[in-house]
Amino acid sequence: MDARERLLDAAGSLMHERGYEAVGVAELCARAGVKKGSFYHFFPSKQALALEVIDRTWSTTRATVFADTFDVDDLPAVDAIELYGQRLAERLRTGADATGQVNGCRFGNFAVELSTRDEVIRARVAEVLGEMAAVVGDSLHRDVEAGRLRRDLDVDAVAAAVIAHMEGLMVVAKANRDPDVLAGLGATARCLVA
Amino acid sequence: MDARERLLDAAGSLMHERGYEAVGVAELCARAGVKKGSFYHFFPSKQALALEVIDRTWSTTRATVFADTFDVDDLPAVDAIELYGQRLAERLRTGADATGQVNGCRFGNFAVELSTRDEVIRARVAEVLGEMAAVVGDSLHRDVEAGRLRRDLDVDAVAAAVIAHMEGLMVVAKANRDPDVLAGLGATARCLVA
Repeated sequence: MDARERLLDAAGSLMHERGYEAVGVAELCARAGVKKGSFYHFFPSKQALALEVIDRTWSTTRATVFADTFDVDDLPAVDAIELYGQRLAERLRTGADATGQVNGCRFGNFAVELSTRDEVIRARVAEVLGEMAAVVGDSLHRDVEAGRLRRDLDVDAVAAAVIAHMEGLMVVAKANRDPDVLAGLGATARCLVA
Repeated sequence: MDARERLLDAAGSLMHERGYEAVGVAELCARAGVKKGSFYHFFPSKQALALEVIDRTWSTTRATVFADTFDVDDLPAVDAIELYGQRLAERLRTGADATGQVNGCRFGNFAVELSTRDEVIRARVAEVLGEMAAVVGDSLHRDVEAGRLRRDLDVDAVAAAVIAHMEGLMVVAKANRDPDVLAGLGATARCLVA
């Protein structure tokens, strides 16, 4: 991994663990094994680094946990949502086993910490939340077309509620240091489509 | 208001607007009109100040928006939850009209920013979230007893899901700078009790 990649990697981990404000450029460089003076050779600002962390995290998340649930042929959307909640719980559990902490949602954390203070990061996180809801919505639409869900379901409203619920479960899981809270996502999704 | 009260007031506002880490003791003292040197005469630490802000905010919230919805005689729990969501939207709208920002949930903000870094604040916020769910649960229990909701409803699970959903809507409202997101709470609550 080159120095730029190592900085992205360090920022992804450290900001997930402790937030944006609490992690400084010096610490990022130390973790990445990069000379402090060269940070600005790779990124114009900590904000620019965080934006690239957000974009990469969403690309990876889209291609892994989202693809492994919402893009699976013939898996009903509600089962996919349930599986998604279980996988998020597993990820939180893996993190908790390693660090004793529940770090919560990488996107929600940025949204809560920075939305009132960094308009560029706020807008980018809002887009990602919208893209997440769109993936869930596509999956629900396929079920409506296949006759597995009722025709008059407000798919966009349900998809938005599922993502909001996921974010809220992440807040509660983090506050209670309890990864299993995420497993509740499927039950709520079943209520929302009934 | 004496100096101690003014510090609590300043911390409540500034930390809601920008978070805990981003607001320093010097700024709190300046806003409160208190000499910087005297901060530690009133509070042993910024953490101690934040804990008192959390306790007071919950006391006030319990006695106002919670009492005005969940303690109203003969108001069905689901209507109370819907009203609660509408009132939270109104509060966010008032804040947005004044500052152009959506500050989100005072408790959720602390949970997200500090749960991995401050065990005392994490534990206190977790308690508050539990107490919020208990108020919602009491209201649902009364409806079950009155025969307005089905006997086999898992009241504690629904109450926890309502509070988690509220927190998630707050995250999305903050990210999208859109107070109206909170108005979705009632619709989800209706699904959860159906």
